Amino acid sequence: MTGEPEIGDVFGEMIRDAYAVATGIGPRPMAGGRLPRPVIEIIERDDGLVNGAPAAHYLDPPDRWQPHDHRAVDRVHGHVLDVGVGAGRIALHLQERGVPVTGLDTSLGALRVSRHRGVRELVHGTVDEHVADGRRYDTFLLLGNNLGLFEGRERAPALLAALAALARPGATVIAHGTDPYGTTDPVHTGYHERNRRRGRLGGQLRLRLRYRLLGTEWFDYLVCSPEEFAELVHGSPWRLTDVDDTDHPYYLATLALRR
Amino acid sequence: MTGEPEIGDVFGEMIRDAYAVATGIGPRPMAGGRLPRPVIEIIERDDGLVNGAPAAHYLDPPDRWQPHDHRAVDRVHGHVLDVGVGAGRIALHLQERGVPVTGLDTSLGALRVSRHRGVRELVHGTVDEHVADGRRYDTFLLLGNNLGLFEGRERAPALLAALAALARPGATVIAHGTDPYGTTDPVHTGYHERNRRRGRLGGQLRLRLRYRLLGTEWFDYLVCSPEEFAELVHGSPWRLTDVDDTDHPYYLATLALRR
Repeated sequence: MTGEPEIGDVFGEMIRDAYAVATGIGPRPMAGGRLPRPVIEIIERDDGLVNGAPAAHYLDPPDRWQPHDHRAVDRVHGHVLDVGVGAGRIALHLQERGVPVTGLDTSLGALRVSRHRGVRELVHGTVDEHVADGRRYDTFLLLGNNLGLFEGRERAPALLAALAALARPGATVIAHGTDPYGTTDPVHTGYHERNRRRGRLGGQLRLRLRYRLLGTEWFDYLVCSPEEFAELVHGSPWRLTDVDDTDHPYYLATLALRR
Repeated sequence: MTGEPEIGDVFGEMIRDAYAVATGIGPRPMAGGRLPRPVIEIIERDDGLVNGAPAAHYLDPPDRWQPHDHRAVDRVHGHVLDVGVGAGRIALHLQERGVPVTGLDTSLGALRVSRHRGVRELVHGTVDEHVADGRRYDTFLLLGNNLGLFEGRERAPALLAALAALARPGATVIAHGTDPYGTTDPVHTGYHERNRRRGRLGGQLRLRLRYRLLGTEWFDYLVCSPEEFAELVHGSPWRLTDVDDTDHPYYLATLALRR
């Protein structure tokens, strides 16, 4: 591994390659120097579990989305901040509908792909950093499982406060989460148990991404039940007003800014 | 990582899961406890490069094969030993054509899947171990890039000798290799260079497989040019009689047993 690059860099290289494989634009990783190699996101968990997942879904057009993504974009109002815009699949769709949308990402590589695909408003940085830019929003989308960005009990209050600082009156947050507690797989139930013994939320995953020669530092990413999320939101500038769990174990949590 | 299991175990768990995802037979790894997770083979190289590849191809029916696989099975004669039978895709096809075929693998998990899919003759072990069983063959197939099993200058003579010990007069070996030297990617050309400086063949990869919580020890796996392979075969009981590189950089090397 060559150093410890930012999460954004690793994610960005992967998104750039996934885009190159999908479109033929730019150099692509090849198998045997000839066949485009499917781009795989490799996620290590701190208990040694490693999973790979094809990265192509970051580019998916709406007809390949999960149903909850459609329900999420149907709920937006006003100016939308797409938190973790990635390759821009959500932002592009909103733009096409005439919805004003800004894409935010820590990954320069992802932003480059989003721009190339036609997303017009893009900002590099974290939610916290974006507060100083003076822009304000009516809807915050954290899709693609990005409820995970709340990380756990330490990070959640700060992220909720930063979102509130970016919010216009009447603003909402729509976050896609996954309830991890339906599984009986001991690989996961044991991990949840060890997390709880260490004072963490059961599904407070400690992960790192790897892509080709790059690997990130370890970071926290949260999968939690709607009840746990309600606890995290309690006492913040936001109220949990709705949990849509039609696609259980996936759910959409909607927060409304307190007056 | 829980211990350092054999290559066969890691491969076998992966093949078992790929089979479960493809057929619905047996417990499957699920994403979010609900959606079957595509099974990904994760391969680490000793310079830190990590690649993932969907494992489903191990189950591919003939209409999804690469052209060189078809040309390889068209060349067999007599009783065939399928070295590294995996999930049995090649052996099943030969059986259907009425060709007597035995599948050999070090992975009990892979053998279990091959048996479940209908491969009748299966042997657990290495080529070297199989010599003592007294069976003899007319054709040895090393497909799915399994020319890699020759590893490098140290291992190749022993494997060629073991194959000769298993061979009937007039026997052939048909091995699928990949010429790695067409690439200009510095990640690979630099690796080849470092290998050569250490007295290894340029494409003598040092790899380990990872699957979920399992990881193998590091092992050598060879990608080499046909010229390098000719060098390895030189002075062995085998003669390199043909290199079919129609699908360059992939090629089929055919060896004939010396009289």
